[in-house]
Amino acid sequence: MLVNQQHFRTIWPKFDDGKAMVQVIDQTRLPHVFAVADIASLQDMVHAIKTMQVRGAPLIGAAAAYGIALAMEESCTDVQLSHAAITLVAARPTAVNLKWAVDRMLARLQPLPLQDRPRAAWAEAAVICDEDVLLNQAIGQHGLEIICQQVRSKTRTLNILTHCNAGWLATVDFGTALAPIYAARDAGINLHVWVGETRPRNQGASLTAWELGQHGVPHTVISDNAGGHLMLQGQVDMVIVGADRVTATGDVCNKIGTYLKALAAYHGDVTGARIPFYAAVPSPTIDWTIEEGVAHIEIEERHADELIWISGKLADGTIASVNVLPSDTQVVNPAFDVTPAKFVTGIITEHGVFAPDQLREMLECREDA
Amino acid sequence: MLVNQQHFRTIWPKFDDGKAMVQVIDQTRLPHVFAVADIASLQDMVHAIKTMQVRGAPLIGAAAAYGIALAMEESCTDVQLSHAAITLVAARPTAVNLKWAVDRMLARLQPLPLQDRPRAAWAEAAVICDEDVLLNQAIGQHGLEIICQQVRSKTRTLNILTHCNAGWLATVDFGTALAPIYAARDAGINLHVWVGETRPRNQGASLTAWELGQHGVPHTVISDNAGGHLMLQGQVDMVIVGADRVTATGDVCNKIGTYLKALAAYHGDVTGARIPFYAAVPSPTIDWTIEEGVAHIEIEERHADELIWISGKLADGTIASVNVLPSDTQVVNPAFDVTPAKFVTGIITEHGVFAPDQLREMLECREDA
Repeated sequence: MLVNQQHFRTIWPKFDDGKAMVQVIDQTRLPHVFAVADIASLQDMVHAIKTMQVRGAPLIGAAAAYGIALAMEESCTDVQLSHAAITLVAARPTAVNLKWAVDRMLARLQPLPLQDRPRAAWAEAAVICDEDVLLNQAIGQHGLEIICQQVRSKTRTLNILTHCNAGWLATVDFGTALAPIYAARDAGINLHVWVGETRPRNQGASLTAWELGQHGVPHTVISDNAGGHLMLQGQVDMVIVGADRVTATGDVCNKIGTYLKALAAYHGDVTGARIPFYAAVPSPTIDWTIEEGVAHIEIEERHADELIWISGKLADGTIASVNVLPSDTQVVNPAFDVTPAKFVTGIITEHGVFAPDQLREMLECREDA
Repeated sequence: MLVNQQHFRTIWPKFDDGKAMVQVIDQTRLPHVFAVADIASLQDMVHAIKTMQVRGAPLIGAAAAYGIALAMEESCTDVQLSHAAITLVAARPTAVNLKWAVDRMLARLQPLPLQDRPRAAWAEAAVICDEDVLLNQAIGQHGLEIICQQVRSKTRTLNILTHCNAGWLATVDFGTALAPIYAARDAGINLHVWVGETRPRNQGASLTAWELGQHGVPHTVISDNAGGHLMLQGQVDMVIVGADRVTATGDVCNKIGTYLKALAAYHGDVTGARIPFYAAVPSPTIDWTIEEGVAHIEIEERHADELIWISGKLADGTIASVNVLPSDTQVVNPAFDVTPAKFVTGIITEHGVFAPDQLREMLECREDA
């Protein structure tokens, strides 16, 4: 997508004078500074993942793949390959995509003669990135169809509400929840996005607002608290969010606060007219082994500091963090919540859009094939 | 209530060496600094109200009454009385209690001979304060009965969720939504309060957490986004909030985000068992002229800066504000929302607790009397 009118992905390799490295957009400095970070070694990549210079499940997978490629530049022995795999997986132990990407790299590289491993690693990492982009573009096209249906029933700008960041910054390009929005924008549809700031980490305020702004998509930031009011007042036409996990029955596990937006969409505007609520995800995000999301998805409890300290830019331009709580206040910080399928209109995937109770059809189609 | 084991109200007069003044807890410096501000003149009081050193509807009313008393110390002419009234009302033009208190002071003082006005002004301001305290204590007692009912059905600590600050800091003492909680604590009931941080102004994180902590009430701060998740997980037994206005039909207008918590309470825990949702208000907060809250209560739109800048304490102890948005981001900041009566279990008032559809009974009783 665009940054200062120039096309960027979130991650790419760079080969200069025989030296191979990786470059990434440093997400810890957004939205105040746009900076590209050089990742010259496995160690650099582990650091980038740990410190969230790169974040978002699909992007972390791509970063891990390139981490293996960088490791192969140092040495291409089996020992080095195992070391790289273990170190990368330990960088964010709960990230499913990271483990998936590392396993895929191992499966590709282990059978090869040592001298072939570096080139194959760079090539496989590039394929992982390109596949992510294609997947997200397909999600964008299926989501675009739904947006077009909504547009036909409206005579004014279409207002879409999103939560957190499931945009291109969370992936290699295009994003998941924002892919349909970018596709609609490119198709000339008159739309506007409500962006919830997404406390406690403020991914909406700092990342979603930034990337929509760079790509020229009209948007307005609101407190997370304001979403229900706007829906009741008829100012939201549909909701599209991403998801970290979707159950076989269509329960949606996503960033904390998603459930409250889904409830408000379900109760709709002042006339009670329901507002469609969609989660956009690549199909591997669907966990076919789980049916009861609220009871069976374990919710990650994150550090209290995320709520206690807020980072931003002081009036003099310095980046700093301020403590917003009385000292010694107890904090609980669940990172995700589960929206029961009852409140979900549909799941947008690369294979099409499915109502929660029809999600299994996707699996059956793929098993038939 | 208690601050560092000492009893405080939010506002009180001080008479020293023939010089009369008012002291208030400076709420702009909480939670990081507990400081008492001296208010020595009408001009000081106008400044304290404007800068929100004192805030919360009942407290602003009391502050305005003392503002009139301070003005009478300077001069007790009719001109001075009118000047004081106009200046105070203009300090926060939308605050209903402020106008109410000023009108009451005028009605009391205007008929009096000039030399009697100062003493009468100090006495009337004190009565306004004491009445507020009695009202809140009555709310506390009626709310306590409901809490006791809940306790009887639980075998563990009772978990109450609140939003924003409707505590003693918003009143002269005891608070509205927190009055039942303080009463329950004093009655030895084993309870714990979930405090939503209440973006964008963070009144939950900075004021409610602070006052509960000072009074020794166990509490935990959560992001506003986490309330729904906790309810679904069965970790909330009841919700008590304040309100800025309640309609004759029981619609509750309160701090933005209240509606989302009410929806989550309505849908309850994973078994669907509804969680009781109460608003605690003094009866003058009920607007008998309005029936349809969502359609007919105008919602104040506040400045974008409240969302853009967050104030807190830097690591070195300095108080500072940080900007959390990309530059030039558009912001919408509605300050309140309306929770339709359908989602409200009851309204706790000084006259008792009423289901929304029985609220008119209170009016009828009082008309009969």
